[in-house]
Amino acid sequence: MKQVIDFVKANLEKEKQPAHALGFGKYFTDHMFMMDYNEEQGWHEPRILPYQPLTMEPSSMVFHYGQAIFEGLKAYRTPEGKIQLFRPDKNIERLNFSCQRMSIPTLDEALVLDAITQLVTIEKDWVPSEEGTSLYIRPFIIATEPYLGVRPSKRYKFMIILSPVGSYYGGDQLKPVKIHVEENYVRAVKGGVGHVKTSGNYAASLKAQEEAEAQGYDQVLWLDAKENKYVEEVGSMNIFFKINGEVVTPELNGSILGGITRSSCLQLLDYWNFPVSERRISIEEVFEAYYRGELEEAFGAGTAAVISPVGELSWNNQKITLPPSETETIAKRLYDAITNIQLGKEPDPFQWTVEVK
Amino acid sequence: MKQVIDFVKANLEKEKQPAHALGFGKYFTDHMFMMDYNEEQGWHEPRILPYQPLTMEPSSMVFHYGQAIFEGLKAYRTPEGKIQLFRPDKNIERLNFSCQRMSIPTLDEALVLDAITQLVTIEKDWVPSEEGTSLYIRPFIIATEPYLGVRPSKRYKFMIILSPVGSYYGGDQLKPVKIHVEENYVRAVKGGVGHVKTSGNYAASLKAQEEAEAQGYDQVLWLDAKENKYVEEVGSMNIFFKINGEVVTPELNGSILGGITRSSCLQLLDYWNFPVSERRISIEEVFEAYYRGELEEAFGAGTAAVISPVGELSWNNQKITLPPSETETIAKRLYDAITNIQLGKEPDPFQWTVEVK
Repeated sequence: MKQVIDFVKANLEKEKQPAHALGFGKYFTDHMFMMDYNEEQGWHEPRILPYQPLTMEPSSMVFHYGQAIFEGLKAYRTPEGKIQLFRPDKNIERLNFSCQRMSIPTLDEALVLDAITQLVTIEKDWVPSEEGTSLYIRPFIIATEPYLGVRPSKRYKFMIILSPVGSYYGGDQLKPVKIHVEENYVRAVKGGVGHVKTSGNYAASLKAQEEAEAQGYDQVLWLDAKENKYVEEVGSMNIFFKINGEVVTPELNGSILGGITRSSCLQLLDYWNFPVSERRISIEEVFEAYYRGELEEAFGAGTAAVISPVGELSWNNQKITLPPSETETIAKRLYDAITNIQLGKEPDPFQWTVEVK
Repeated sequence: MKQVIDFVKANLEKEKQPAHALGFGKYFTDHMFMMDYNEEQGWHEPRILPYQPLTMEPSSMVFHYGQAIFEGLKAYRTPEGKIQLFRPDKNIERLNFSCQRMSIPTLDEALVLDAITQLVTIEKDWVPSEEGTSLYIRPFIIATEPYLGVRPSKRYKFMIILSPVGSYYGGDQLKPVKIHVEENYVRAVKGGVGHVKTSGNYAASLKAQEEAEAQGYDQVLWLDAKENKYVEEVGSMNIFFKINGEVVTPELNGSILGGITRSSCLQLLDYWNFPVSERRISIEEVFEAYYRGELEEAFGAGTAAVISPVGELSWNNQKITLPPSETETIAKRLYDAITNIQLGKEPDPFQWTVEVK
């Protein structure tokens, strides 16, 4: 039986920013979705209400023990003015995967899709149409029980907030980024929580990112925590290399996040019969391929930036530069294919998009 | 120059619970301390105000990227009715250590001590006097900037809340606990954040703890993430073994939290000229010592429970039982020494305690 989502309309509509001023995750729309959990009622009272501050007890467990997970996806405006979501089922599935690992009660996936769809419908005028823009959708769950013992919370809030966004890195799409291979800090390890979208993973990454930026890099590339040898992720994206005509990306090993853009890239490469492998790859192999002249491309893939080509890679006092290709790169081909499907400019052979009516 | 802490008195005083009903971290006092950070003013507006809910933007970075740290210490009532803190300088030092690792601006340590002291003074009637009770002090920092990009927040709140507490495990002090040696999940790894008190470490530990409890254990003992072999911590305590007359505890290796109770135990053992070593110790060594009849004791040490003797240890389908000793154990001796100093029942040769006047 389909659950009814209550709706309380905002009295005032906020002013919308012009596309060039949007940035990423700075402005939020007029409404938000909220649903609560307690032991007696389970998840209950799904509702869309005016965007507003939360009232939180200082002892809310999320502040102390970090029991929090999130997702990120986007709604796009097509040339005909329609609005569509990109693979929302994958985000919702991963949300529940994160719930399970973090001892949070799982959600009804149909209800979550319904909540996203209804909220985006209400906020349809907030979906921008300019090149490189979209409406970012942030579902998240936080532990709200006011208690300081270390155990899973008995109360939670599930919320969805929306933010009209421009380009994540603030500049051109497909602008090559400078990457520092991180050798001191690590992001995650097998048996931990690196493969789920929990808040603590991001907090743990800040210091390395900050130090890399101070040295003039855009992002860090994480190596595995056990041997400091195998490539894991880049910043908060998955990483791909093109070596001697084959695309290689690290296999999902329990510490890497299973990105939805990553999975879309793999599916597209397969569809194109492009040689691709998911496997363990050491940073040494990447540098050796470069010195042999076989490292043709490197790029990150994630929801925020879609595809980010790597222009420079620094590791162990070696700095290598990947010059802009004179032919069409696989990074560009993937970027165009994915964004054209997201924006409804090309047919969607995989049924990745869901129209919001 | 000493900063002035503003004070707004609560209009109403809450009812205080009887000692047996306190539990841990369930009830909070009438006032709290708060101070804000922004880029223009740095840490500013230190104030004590009525305990009350916070108003938080849904996009506050702490909800999404987990930039949050905390401390835990206690105020004790002496037999003469005085109130004293136990090693607050160590907690405040560690708070700043956590700040540095988590890219949070550090605090003025003298101001933090002043804040704790003034708040506890105002709430002096909340410090319970019954056996096993104390006033738990929870300083914490959360990232409050409303922004969804992944980088350190530009706004924070530093708060101190107080909770009158009974025994952490709800039962007798020094009641032996059953421990499951965790082989699937890990807590932390070198290069990560296991050595700092950040919220995500606790979220990452919940699943293993929950599964161990479902099997009848009280806590998990964590092994190292690289080899799944060396002993790290137990639950959220440090672990000690007494093997053939010597006390052994894992050395601080970058993934273990440097506990203040741990450091107090080491200092006491040293003072007593008791053989002690901080070194890497494998779980295999612990079990072998048991089978040789040389594992005399095992116990956890932490602020919440002070000392928790281990009664049972299960690893790799082997279950070993440490029978209650007929002679005085080192666990009991440490527990008595530390709690007697905390409670002002014995002289304090180390100047660990600070009276709150």
